[in-house]
Parts: sequence; C-alpha cells; structure tokens
Amino acid sequence: MCTERTPRVAAARQLARRTGRTRAGRFLAEGAQAVREALRWPGRVHELFFTAQAAERNPELLDAARDAGVPLSEITERAAAGLSETVTPQGIVAVCDTVDVSLERALAGRPKLVAVLVGVADPGNAGTVSRVADAAGADAVIFAGDTVDPHNGKCVRASTGSLFHLPIARERDLTTVLDACRAAGLRLVAADGNAADDLDTAGALAEPTAWLFGSEAHGVPGEVLAAADEALRVPIYGDAESLNLATAAAVCLYASARAHRSPE
Amino acid sequence: MCTERTPRVAAARQLARRTGRTRAGRFLAEGAQAVREALRWPGRVHELFFTAQAAERNPELLDAARDAGVPLSEITERAAAGLSETVTPQGIVAVCDTVDVSLERALAGRPKLVAVLVGVADPGNAGTVSRVADAAGADAVIFAGDTVDPHNGKCVRASTGSLFHLPIARERDLTTVLDACRAAGLRLVAADGNAADDLDTAGALAEPTAWLFGSEAHGVPGEVLAAADEALRVPIYGDAESLNLATAAAVCLYASARAHRSPE
Repeated sequence: MCTERTPRVAAARQLARRTGRTRAGRFLAEGAQAVREALRWPGRVHELFFTAQAAERNPELLDAARDAGVPLSEITERAAAGLSETVTPQGIVAVCDTVDVSLERALAGRPKLVAVLVGVADPGNAGTVSRVADAAGADAVIFAGDTVDPHNGKCVRASTGSLFHLPIARERDLTTVLDACRAAGLRLVAADGNAADDLDTAGALAEPTAWLFGSEAHGVPGEVLAAADEALRVPIYGDAESLNLATAAAVCLYASARAHRSPE
Repeated sequence: MCTERTPRVAAARQLARRTGRTRAGRFLAEGAQAVREALRWPGRVHELFFTAQAAERNPELLDAARDAGVPLSEITERAAAGLSETVTPQGIVAVCDTVDVSLERALAGRPKLVAVLVGVADPGNAGTVSRVADAAGADAVIFAGDTVDPHNGKCVRASTGSLFHLPIARERDLTTVLDACRAAGLRLVAADGNAADDLDTAGALAEPTAWLFGSEAHGVPGEVLAAADEALRVPIYGDAESLNLATAAAVCLYASARAHRSPE
C-alpha cells in the first residue's frame, strides 16, 4: 500500500501543478471516466493509482490497465487526496502523457468547426467548453493566450473525457492562433454579447468556422474582436443580461453544427 | 454595526435554510446582481444587510434601497458569512419575499415556452437553467418534483437575477405539473439523451412547448418520459457521451426560441 510519502506517489503529486506537468510532459487523469478514456490509448498511460474503495467500484478499469501492462498501485485515501485537484478526490488517478498537439496538427485536414478559448482562466469553464465542442463535432479546441492549462485537474474533470477525443492545442501568442486558423480556411467568428448581429439572423454559419470565446469576466479581447471576420451574439429574448460561457458556447457551436449539416 | 448575534441578523440567518424560508415566506438574495434585481420591486424587499466593503463597492444599491424606504443595516464580515450559502460571501444581502407563484399563474396567458425541472437536486444547475430559460425568452420555469428550492442561495446566485425576471412555480406532484402544462396548450417534450429522435431533425419545435429536464445523474424519470408527447436528444456529433444539464438545456431552449421566431 502506497502512502503520500512513497516516492512514486510523491513524484506523481508534482503533476498536480502546472510546472510539474510541463517538466514531465505528463498529467493526472482523475476519476473513473477520465481513466477509462485514457486507457483507450494504453501507450499513453504510465501508471494507475487507486484506493481500495475505488478498486471495488471500478474493477473493470483495473482489469483493463492490467491487460495493457500499466503498473498498478493501491494508495491510501490520504495519498489520493494529495493527487487530486478537486475537493472530492475520486480515488482513481492515471499518470498520462499530456494530450496537446501542435497548432498545425490540430488544424490539419480541412477543419470545419474549431473552438478557440481566448484567455479563459476558469478550468471548469474551459473543460466544459471542450466537452461541448466534442459533442458538437468540432475538429479541435485551441487553448489560446492566457487560457488555463488543459491538463489542470478541474479542467480534465469538467471535460469528462473529451480532452482525449479531439485534438487540443495550446498557443500563447494570439496572432499566431488567428493566422493559423485563417490559413486552415476557417472564418474567425467572435462570440460577443455586445455584437450588433446575432446567431439567429447570421447568414454565414455554414462556412468552416473558428469560434472565438473569451472569459466570462472580460469577454473576447478588443484586439481579437478587431481581427475577427465577424462578431455574433447569442440573442437574448428575455430579461437576462447574458448567458454564462459554457451555455453561450453550446448555443454557438450547435448553431454551426446544424448549419454544416443542413441542406443548402 | 450588527454582528451575527444581533437579533435581526440571527432572524435573517434562519432564511439560509429551507425550513426557515418556508416558515417566513422570505429568502436571502445575496450579491450585488441579485440585490439590484430585487430592488426593482422595492415592495418585496424588507431589509438590506451590507458590510463596509460591500457598501464601498456598491454605493448605488444603498442609495436605491434608501430611496425605496428599505431598512439598511451594516454588518460585520462574520455576520455576512452567516447569511451566505456560498463559500465566498458577497457582503450584501437583501431579505425578500419569496418569488414563486402558483402553477396556474405561471402558466397563464398562453405560454409558448416553459422549462420544467424534474427532480433537479443541484442548485447551481437549477439556477443556471433558469438563467438560460430567461435568456431564451421562456414564459416560466417550473421547479417540479424533488427539485431544489429556487430560493436556495446557490440557485439564486447561479440564476444571476433571472428568478426575478420570469414566473417561477413549485409543485411536488409531477402529474399536476404535466396536466397543468397540457391544459395551458403546451406540448410536453422530454430532453433525453437516449431518445430516438434528435433536435436537429425534429419537426414540431415551433409549437408551444414545455421542455422537461431531469437531473444529470438520473435524467427524466421513466413515468414522466412515458407521459410526455415526445422525447428528443441533443445530437452528439463527436465522441462525447453527453452534455451537462445546463448546456443541453441551452441548446434545447434556443432551438425552440428560434423555431418560434422563424417564418413558417
């Protein structure tokens, strides 16, 4: 039984921080859902930690890891808490290779729908938008500018496995991101609550689109708005001031998904 | 300066619990946004508590309350924490009459779009769906069955004022809710991830619709699914298993809002 002082657990705990992840090129996929998705690419999973309780709840995951030759270690509840970035540790954590690919690779192959997160600091929001992008059939998600690390524990959890489903790229320089999207044939459409035009009256949704989403607090930055081909708002038909980021992104991404599939 | 032991603060603290709210017919609207919305109906606000810091940040709210004849009391940070149901107290809290109306009143006047929460226990989800329903121009939100109290602090906060914008009704008996919706001329459409038909191929979205949303864990209960006129899923075009409740509700409610406004 490994405790929080066992060297391999202590080493894994470094991955609960961004600097540790960057140094190792690995991250912690926590929870049964994330572990299940990670094990679909067994070469990327280096180790699986689990508590006795989690083992009882998820025997099939332990079997799958064993079959794939992934080293298994039972850990104490306290060790599990140390490997968790959330207040309710799941008791099952895989050490995985980081998932992000280069911008070029994420945008290869004539993408039709891409979600770009611009300066989204909240990991729950970033993870939920990644999940929505996956559901809407997006080709990639770009974590741009000061956006949170996609491997942040709360982001991994909110994505419920979607980080493993579609290409994820990270790029701090916003101009590089916008240029790469344009070079990939994508129209840059900023989601902006103050835009003059709205989704339900917009005409060009059927074109290949990179949706640009900003943070809830600050929205899409001015220089990105200026560089975009168009800004659109989700129409507000009632008295609400706005939608939150994840629900707004859901409406925008599904509007494009529908337009891409509807007969001309 | 009132502390947590001042009788009026101690009395208000009872409202942080459902039993206290039910007894008093009042609840706590916490945070600048909720207080601002509450003060639009000054007759419904009985008292405003604020910390020195919150007063500095929101002088206009104190002025508005004063103009409306609402009693004002400065409280300590500790008293503010006692009046908060969230981990980050906002320091400004209004004691308000509860907002819910009868089912009959909520459904009066030929509604076209209604959101029904069926057994949604998570207050953040219930509040966020209320906000989305407001944004999509819904006529009412029904908190049905074992759904959380709409006046729960986390629900109030997630709704960002929307609880004050559109009629909210509560009814534990599900048959009563479904019958009332039908009597109001609404088609009952259950959002169900396992439904055979999806939103993008559904034909009848332009009709007046009551959307039935279940909890993330359990979905819409079987007996409600059986009673509904139709079940629809949000199409999943990628590899995600599902959407979360708020993003699914956003896509569903906006699909109806759009259909209601599009030329035949």
